[in-house]
Amino acid sequence: MEVFRDINSLGKYLSAHKCEGRSVGLVPTMGALHQGHVSLLEQALQENDVVVSTIYVNPKQFNNLEDLRKYPRQLEADLSILRAAGCQAVFVPSDADMYPEEPVLSLQFGDMDRILEGEFRPGHFNGVALIVSKLFNAVQPDRAYFGQKDLQQFLIIRKLVRDLGFSIELRCVEIFREESGLALSSRNQRLSGEGRQTAAYIYQMLQMAAARLSDGDPWEGVRADGLDFLSGNGVQPEYFEAVDAETLVRQTNHFSGKKVALCVAAYVESVRLIDNLILGGS
Amino acid sequence: MEVFRDINSLGKYLSAHKCEGRSVGLVPTMGALHQGHVSLLEQALQENDVVVSTIYVNPKQFNNLEDLRKYPRQLEADLSILRAAGCQAVFVPSDADMYPEEPVLSLQFGDMDRILEGEFRPGHFNGVALIVSKLFNAVQPDRAYFGQKDLQQFLIIRKLVRDLGFSIELRCVEIFREESGLALSSRNQRLSGEGRQTAAYIYQMLQMAAARLSDGDPWEGVRADGLDFLSGNGVQPEYFEAVDAETLVRQTNHFSGKKVALCVAAYVESVRLIDNLILGGS
Repeated sequence: MEVFRDINSLGKYLSAHKCEGRSVGLVPTMGALHQGHVSLLEQALQENDVVVSTIYVNPKQFNNLEDLRKYPRQLEADLSILRAAGCQAVFVPSDADMYPEEPVLSLQFGDMDRILEGEFRPGHFNGVALIVSKLFNAVQPDRAYFGQKDLQQFLIIRKLVRDLGFSIELRCVEIFREESGLALSSRNQRLSGEGRQTAAYIYQMLQMAAARLSDGDPWEGVRADGLDFLSGNGVQPEYFEAVDAETLVRQTNHFSGKKVALCVAAYVESVRLIDNLILGGS
Repeated sequence: MEVFRDINSLGKYLSAHKCEGRSVGLVPTMGALHQGHVSLLEQALQENDVVVSTIYVNPKQFNNLEDLRKYPRQLEADLSILRAAGCQAVFVPSDADMYPEEPVLSLQFGDMDRILEGEFRPGHFNGVALIVSKLFNAVQPDRAYFGQKDLQQFLIIRKLVRDLGFSIELRCVEIFREESGLALSSRNQRLSGEGRQTAAYIYQMLQMAAARLSDGDPWEGVRADGLDFLSGNGVQPEYFEAVDAETLVRQTNHFSGKKVALCVAAYVESVRLIDNLILGGS
């Protein structure tokens, strides 16, 4: 596996592959890799000749300095995981590479970045859109892979790609869960064993809500009970919303026939976790 | 000269050239080509193996529907001019190619897009940044050429390129003027013979202001006299400002040692014209 630390050498390596007619898949990460990332890599390896992963903890998408400081960093372990998965190249840029000067540009996505994460993490999606654009321009891949756990991020990046005309196919890879149902996340490393058990109530709640909605129960009651269920089990919910799974428009009722995502953010042991479940449609 | 009307065939043409090691220059235009555009093309032809021009009247950068409607369109004449100049390829996209769906993304540049044109043409630079990003992604050139007449546009695009990490070198090509000093503009076509003479007062005013500033006259008096000079000669000024020629920060005095741009927008026969003159620095 080739490890690149500057854009120019990465660019030369990729140009050579592209001019030989090889397709390139991109799996951008912030490191602290887990089986969820590996599932993105596996799909990328199936669909492309060359897979490039990137490892960069992007400061501009952290609205909370404490969260940025505590974000797990384990480069050597990450490189071993990428190597074992069969990844051909990894790009590990420096801050100076990614932000040679302070950005002035702000990327705003109307209602899409004001709801859910956007409401509680101001500036987060601007930071995501900036770094993803930079990585797209550095790699110019044929396909790029993102996890469904960050559904809102995926939908916003899809709009970024369409609105700026990046010629990149996006793939949304389904959530990888522990046996308990807990969605894999780099932030899970910060939970105790007990915290991990508590965190599993988040997905339990999503499943219970989905079952009741499919029985025809109205959303407002399902939502209130879901929030109570979390609080009663030691999970501090931040939001629990139903949104259109394509447009992110908040839904209040009459879900039938539409693809609707139930999205939740909650704290366990001061660690902020998110999860979602898509109903109907596909 | 090859004429492309869809992105895919343009992409294939360019990939072949790039993989042969040829450099690509981009000259984006809205058509209605004049000698100013030709000077961009000439520089692009000197510095690149292949030059692609684009012709597209971008509706999203017009805040005034009347201005969009009256914007001159003359595709056959434009193609002849490009052919004569030696341009190798031209891309003439349709609206459906450039805007397959309504954009949600808004690109904002802080104070840079709130001053000068940004103050009087709300949304203009968002529209410019959208279309330029789309053209950059469609062509992926080594170099792109813009005219100094739209100085604020050039500086905003330069920031766009830096903040999103497009690997494109930008060139700012100096203003091409008629003998009278009038800056060439596609909008000049809409002026009568007399209007064209009147419009020449704009550059006269800029030169007079520059001379007085170099004599040490304070900016406020120079500015007031410049505005009076225009009004007294049948030109309706919209703004006349001095800004830092790199950052676009408004200057009020003490220009010495800095590159300062005097920027003016004014109406002649209801046609909106802009011009600028850069002092010091370079």
